[in-house]
Amino acid sequence: MNRVLENASPLVWRSVRSNVMSDDNCLFCRIIAGEIPATKVLEDDVCLAFMDIGPLAEGHVLLIPKIHAVTLDELPGDAAGAMLKHLPALVKAVQTVTQCQGVNILQNNGQAANQQVMHVHFHVIPRNEGDEFEFNWPAGSYRPGRIEELAEALKKEL
Amino acid sequence: MNRVLENASPLVWRSVRSNVMSDDNCLFCRIIAGEIPATKVLEDDVCLAFMDIGPLAEGHVLLIPKIHAVTLDELPGDAAGAMLKHLPALVKAVQTVTQCQGVNILQNNGQAANQQVMHVHFHVIPRNEGDEFEFNWPAGSYRPGRIEELAEALKKEL
Repeated sequence: MNRVLENASPLVWRSVRSNVMSDDNCLFCRIIAGEIPATKVLEDDVCLAFMDIGPLAEGHVLLIPKIHAVTLDELPGDAAGAMLKHLPALVKAVQTVTQCQGVNILQNNGQAANQQVMHVHFHVIPRNEGDEFEFNWPAGSYRPGRIEELAEALKKEL
Repeated sequence: MNRVLENASPLVWRSVRSNVMSDDNCLFCRIIAGEIPATKVLEDDVCLAFMDIGPLAEGHVLLIPKIHAVTLDELPGDAAGAMLKHLPALVKAVQTVTQCQGVNILQNNGQAANQQVMHVHFHVIPRNEGDEFEFNWPAGSYRPGRIEELAEALKKEL
């Protein structure tokens, strides 16, 4: 939970969870509204991209929707598409400017996924061999039949 | 570099880098073509979502474009938007089916960013407190003026 919202009233939480257009207590909504400064790199009707002030590497950019949504499942699909069509250009620009060897796109939903600010944001993270941002990859496997069970359950929800 | 492509000829590499519609040597293009089986959960004209057979957690899904692109910067913005508008529904479905506490969206460009298969893919990764998929967060800071320099350089590329 982020610092702005951790003491918020249940009423604020309800409004946040109901996908309101903006939330006065949200850091990123206040950046969108111009109440808190940010170093912007791209803006249109649906989204804003700006520099992360605590970068994992030089050139670390955040892309956020202007509509307030805490987690990605709350964001309308069309708004997600209209925002995320900018990712290829952002990756290319970050590569060109920083001359990095790779780029990660990362978006965290919920505390268990390391979400820090409770407004959907996509990280564009420049990477180089041996840098300090690392993740492990504990790939598992499925017992026979389990992958099909999960896929069938997912299809019913889609 | 993935196993399929590491012995590919320079000609194959040129075709891959030039954003061809599909590549016969690409594992994911062969899944799209139906030549290699996959457990699909969602498909339309522009994209395919299927179960990762080496999951970081039960319900780990991959979302890929049908057009062949090695890294995200090679994918047309419109194709990215048309594909990624499905992310909110995928996150919601994964949460509902697995009852996970959080979800990470992760997309890796280049070996330095841990890319394993050389066709753009977005991971939808269920997360729970204390699970084995972890990443550190070595947030840095900028010297005065540097963040604005980088933002100006990025804006020129966008």
